[in-house]
Amino acid sequence: MVIGKVVGTVVSTRKNDDLTGCKLMVVENIWEKEQIKYVAVDQVGVGIGDFVLVTYGSAARMGVGKEYSSIDAAIVGIIDNEEEIYIK
Amino acid sequence: MVIGKVVGTVVSTRKNDDLTGCKLMVVENIWEKEQIKYVAVDQVGVGIGDFVLVTYGSAARMGVGKEYSSIDAAIVGIIDNEEEIYIK
Amino acid sequence: MVIGKVVGTVVSTRKNDDLTGCKLMVVENIWEKEQIKYVAVDQVGVGIGDFVLVTYGSAARMGVGKEYSSIDAAIVGIIDNEEEIYIK
Amino acid sequence: MVIGKVVGTVVSTRKNDDLTGCKLMVVENIWEKEQIKYVAVDQVGVGIGDFVLVTYGSAARMGVGKEYSSIDAAIVGIIDNEEEIYIK
Amino acid sequence: MVIGKVVGTVVSTRKNDDLTGCKLMVVENIWEKEQIKYVAVDQVGVGIGDFVLVTYGSAARMGVGKEYSSIDAAIVGIIDNEEEIYIK
Repeated sequence: MVIGKVVGTVVSTRKNDDLTGCKLMVVENIWEKEQIKYVAVDQVGVGIGDFVLVTYGSAARMGVGKEYSSIDAAIVGIIDNEEEIYIK
Repeated sequence: MVIGKVVGTVVSTRKNDDLTGCKLMVVENIWEKEQIKYVAVDQVGVGIGDFVLVTYGSAARMGVGKEYSSIDAAIVGIIDNEEEIYIK
Repeated sequence: MVIGKVVGTVVSTRKNDDLTGCKLMVVENIWEKEQIKYVAVDQVGVGIGDFVLVTYGSAARMGVGKEYSSIDAAIVGIIDNEEEIYIK
Repeated sequence: MVIGKVVGTVVSTRKNDDLTGCKLMVVENIWEKEQIKYVAVDQVGVGIGDFVLVTYGSAARMGVGKEYSSIDAAIVGIIDNEEEIYIK
Repeated sequence: MVIGKVVGTVVSTRKNDDLTGCKLMVVENIWEKEQIKYVAVDQVGVGIGDFVLVTYGSAARMGVGKEYSSIDAAIVGIIDNEEEIYIK
């Protein structure tokens, strides 16, 4: 998993059925030098500015409980000690 | 998932059987500094210039409903708020 | 999938049993700035200089029809319109 | 797998149920030029400063014995000969 | 798959049970500009300096015949024509 900062939301009216009801957030990887962004399904109820735990690949589908969906990134936790992690 | 811009189509006469009938689009990842391109199967009916949601890996096969195919990237949504996402 | 150019072949006498009979080609990703190369199993009968569709990860095993093999990259199509794609 | 150095711990009170009881460590890949960090589930009992073997993707879930969890990175060994590896 | 050069071995006394008996080698990807290294399980009996075929992800577990293990990289062949590949 990586630590991401939630920086936006994605609105998509026309999308795959298996994404219906999924809250799509834009997360910025705090450790990538270029701070690459991804769209991740929110699983825990996050808001803009939160530092979150993001999982990728088949693990994201498992985390969301939709094994056969088109999800490849999911927010699976909110970080409590982000200042400490930033310093290191 | 990432946000891609649809920039072209791919024509392939000689290809794997499991790709027959698949619409192959060239998408450019808007967040990669080098704007890397991929070939993704269109699942929602997109056109050149559209900003779309692209999923990768085994999730792409699931999204397309072809669990045992050779697909590793799929377009699974059209983005409504691309200007807002670009700014952030 | 990505578009690759076939630039060579790989000869391996001592290899995993599940690779026996597989034609191993060196493909160069035309979109990566550094043009990273991979070894992909040829599924469609390609030659040096061909522009091809390459799939990665578990999708490669599916494409080749060897779900439990050690294959992680496969050539699954020959591109007809490579000039058009290059320009974009 | 890659060799990582354990540089911190992650605290997350609100998280996916399948991560309950998992010890989350920050590991720094010693071979990446930018020393990218990841959050990996500790499986062997490591401490800050240890050089460890980190596995990614679906293998991480298998290693942890939670095939259907949202884990995509796991620490699966402690390295004995890190000085030797650093030199090479 | 990629071509790697075997540059070292990894010793790990305390590790996941599913790695017991696995020979862990350090391989350097010859095509990456930064020559990133990985730890891969040796499946064919290689030595330092050999040019080898390395597979990643779930394919590595399949290649090693341990579908539910924590292995994410495996050496699955020795290259016979490495000089030819280097030139191209």
